[in-house]
Parts: sequence; C-alpha cells; structure tokens
Amino acid sequence: MGRWQPDARARLQEAALALYGERGYEETTVAEIAERAGLTKRTFFRYFPDKREVLFWGSELLGRQMVAAIEAAPASASALEMIGAALDAAAVRFEEVREFAGLRHRIIASSHELRERELIKAAALAAAMAAALRVRGYGDTAAELAALTVTTVMHVTFEQWVSDPNQTPFQRLARETLAQLRAIAAAD
Amino acid sequence: MGRWQPDARARLQEAALALYGERGYEETTVAEIAERAGLTKRTFFRYFPDKREVLFWGSELLGRQMVAAIEAAPASASALEMIGAALDAAAVRFEEVREFAGLRHRIIASSHELRERELIKAAALAAAMAAALRVRGYGDTAAELAALTVTTVMHVTFEQWVSDPNQTPFQRLARETLAQLRAIAAAD
Repeated sequence: MGRWQPDARARLQEAALALYGERGYEETTVAEIAERAGLTKRTFFRYFPDKREVLFWGSELLGRQMVAAIEAAPASASALEMIGAALDAAAVRFEEVREFAGLRHRIIASSHELRERELIKAAALAAAMAAALRVRGYGDTAAELAALTVTTVMHVTFEQWVSDPNQTPFQRLARETLAQLRAIAAAD
Repeated sequence: MGRWQPDARARLQEAALALYGERGYEETTVAEIAERAGLTKRTFFRYFPDKREVLFWGSELLGRQMVAAIEAAPASASALEMIGAALDAAAVRFEEVREFAGLRHRIIASSHELRERELIKAAALAAAMAAALRVRGYGDTAAELAALTVTTVMHVTFEQWVSDPNQTPFQRLARETLAQLRAIAAAD
C-alpha cells in the first residue's frame, strides 16, 4: 500500500463508525478499523491519535468556523446576533455531516468515556468563542455567558435535529430553541 | 485508632486540600492525606473512593438542594423563577464553604483530570435539574434550556465570587449574572 491514500481519513472515519455501530465502541480495535478501510494501522495513526478521536475529528473545524463567524460579524452586531452567527455556522457544518450524525450520536451516548470527551470539547469550544467575544469588546461575564448560550442552544438543538423524522434544518431548529430561551429569560 | 472517628470526613477533606495546595494534586498520595489527618488509609477509603472525589464530595449535596428548590417552587413559578430558586439554593451552599472555595477552585484549575471531573459533575447536575423541571410540567427543550441556564449562570458567577476581594454574596452576584443573560437574550 502506498504512502498516499486519497480520502484515507474519510475511509477510516466511515469504517470506524460502521464498526462502532455494529460491535460497540469498546469492542472495536484500531486494527479492525484499518482493515475495514483497506488500510494499515500505521496509516490510521497518521490521521488519528487514537480510536476515540476518529469521532471528534470534525469538532476542530466546527469550532474554527463558529469562532470565525463571531470574528466576521458586523461591528454593530449585538451579543444575540453573535450567538445567532455562531449557530448558523454550526448549522452549515452539521448539515454537511447529517448522514453520519445519528449513528455518531448513538455511539457517543453508549460510552461514558466518549460522553466525557464530548463535554470537554464543548467546554473548549465555549472558551474559544468567549475569547473571540472578548476581542470583540465584550467583558468577561458577557463573553462567557454568550459563549455558553451558544453551546447550550447547540446541544439542545442537536438532540432534536438528530432524531427529527422530518429532517428539519438545524438552523431553523436552532432559531426556535434560541427563541424559547429568550422567552424563558424574558418572563417576569 | 478506633473505627469511629468524629469528623473524619471533614478532617480528610481539610488535609487533602492543604496538601494539594502545598504540593500539587498529582504529587499527593492518599497515604499522605490520611497521615496529615491523623487517620489511616483504610479510614480514607471508608469515606472516599479515591483522592479525586475528596474535592467533589459536596457536589451531591449541592445537586440535591438545587433539585429540591425546583421541586419546592410554587405551582405558579415561571421557568425563570425556578432558575432563580435553584441558584439561591446554590448560594446558600457556597457561602457555607466559602472558606475553602478559592483553594479548591485553584486546585481544580491546575489539573486536566479534575477539570474533566467538574464538567461531568456539572452535566449530571443539569440532567438532574432538567428531570425535576420535566416533572414540573416543562417540555424536554424548555427543561434542558432552563437547567443548562442554571449551570451556566452558576459557573460564570462562581468565577467572580471566588476571586471577589469584597466577598460579595454569591446570591447577589448570581442575580446580576442572570440579569446580564436576560439583557443579552432580550436584545434585538
């Protein structure tokens, strides 16, 4: 097998998802993933540090796109508009991976270790967005609140979106969730 | 040493905090904690499963009190009032442990493993509050949003409270944080 494998990363991800879904995450080895993808273990480790990270590969890109959306918002944007911009960026990314999102979600829910990893990724994402919001002039408290509001709305919306039989766009569901949060906050 | 040690748990907690602060969390052993407390390792393990849990012992009680506040809120309470009731319960608990809160906070911030543990505890707390809110008649989305709003406001407020030179009460800071979140959500 040559050193260069077109789409090796995507093949490894698909193979890992399929095996985790069939046999369970704990029971699947890196060797089995590589074999299913028609690649070697060595190639696997060129792309991923371990079998857990296969499931979180997209989260760095997601985070960068959400932070970029905050950075690119107009100078006049309110904190709420920054929140909306970050959620719109997440929506674009989620629609791109909708095909695998449900299976990935079930695999993560099946493992304590994977759920922990997801919490850590969400906290890192919130910290990165809070940093971007501080650069945009928000104080520490407002920046943290807005960033955590994004991850809260994203998390709650994702649960609906991933199991929605009508395949409603993430963006629309996120707006409804944000509206519901606003209604809760606005109550007397 | 006899089997029954009055205040053994509190003595072990104080000894652990002191040693983690002096030497670092990673570098401290259970044997050293027990020795500092004038107790045995065996006694330590009667009270705590490991040296990590010493730092999180109070979180179960905190969670129960926050859930109880939601359960005890009047039938007419809005989601926002439920959020406020849960935060008030947290405030009572935090003021009781203010003496140790700053040191504990610094120790947790110093260790990746402890920060992970804290995220997991916060997620479990949010899930418990969401369950209590569903019992109170809230739909899944509203219950999750309100519960995550509590943990968000609690987290952001805690950062201020623990480093506040004026020792402003947690309850007052939490109300200010919640007001700031409401202002963010209310903006057009």
